[in-house]
Amino acid sequence: MAFNTEDAPGVHAEQPEQTGGFVFNHTMIRVVDPEKSLAFYTKVFGMRLLRQKENPDAQFTLYFLARTDGYDVPADEAERAKFMSRIPAVLELTHNWGTEKDPNASYHNGNDEPQGFGHICFTVPDLAAACQWMDDNAVTFQKRPEDGRMSNIAFVKDPDGYWIELVEHSGNG
Amino acid sequence: MAFNTEDAPGVHAEQPEQTGGFVFNHTMIRVVDPEKSLAFYTKVFGMRLLRQKENPDAQFTLYFLARTDGYDVPADEAERAKFMSRIPAVLELTHNWGTEKDPNASYHNGNDEPQGFGHICFTVPDLAAACQWMDDNAVTFQKRPEDGRMSNIAFVKDPDGYWIELVEHSGNG
Repeated sequence: MAFNTEDAPGVHAEQPEQTGGFVFNHTMIRVVDPEKSLAFYTKVFGMRLLRQKENPDAQFTLYFLARTDGYDVPADEAERAKFMSRIPAVLELTHNWGTEKDPNASYHNGNDEPQGFGHICFTVPDLAAACQWMDDNAVTFQKRPEDGRMSNIAFVKDPDGYWIELVEHSGNG
Repeated sequence: MAFNTEDAPGVHAEQPEQTGGFVFNHTMIRVVDPEKSLAFYTKVFGMRLLRQKENPDAQFTLYFLARTDGYDVPADEAERAKFMSRIPAVLELTHNWGTEKDPNASYHNGNDEPQGFGHICFTVPDLAAACQWMDDNAVTFQKRPEDGRMSNIAFVKDPDGYWIELVEHSGNG
């Protein structure tokens, strides 16, 4: 049955069978210093590092993180990689070797010009409690709930300046 | 139990209880023409438009899409918005009104300079079949499986030029 939103121009309300099994698996961002980014995403957002893949020829390492709530994650590394390829909401961090030692290295957050990518978002049970947790971890805010007109959302910045939206599980974000 | 990957510098292997209930809910990208983008993501990737939110004051509309495999999605709009706030792997498209009529409007894909965001990824049961489906829909490839050294992955472009990785559910991507 089509949703009332699905009369928007362009929408195909019938899911093609050729897309069966497709999973929106991950979003990739480049990071300057993986130690800082791994600390941030594993501690502040409770993600777990499920896989790490080095490419010595091209001098980069990929880190794959996800929240594992409700999953029985395989301990075996190969099985865990396969498991990880089938779940949604993985965050891939790309580290090009050496950027962490370059004081001028930085990445573009997509909200400064030229614009494109905007943010990732974590939904949370309690926005005030989540904001307190951000403060406990000295996380930089782009927008606190009380800034501007939208008191139901906040934005923080990750170590590279990428924006992370915080919004409650209320459906009002 | 810690995974063998979790000895990487910076990693907190213990998930803080303050992050309980956090969900990596969505990734936001700006799009020039929502009709084209909605057609692309609903047809080629089988996502469904779960929510649409207009902001007439600031002249933008947000579209929230997700694959709904395995979910019992509420028909009621408010209930569906709440449902959508609790699931992972939502794609948010931001449309700033008027860009679709501006022949010079474009967004930055994060892979051209200045770099930052890299791509989103869909994992698929069969890479060759998925590539055929892309060709059936005249989708532009950034990298076919046979291009370069990594025959197990492909990249296509969405209507704005954002990269979408395709990789099988094998754990070898």
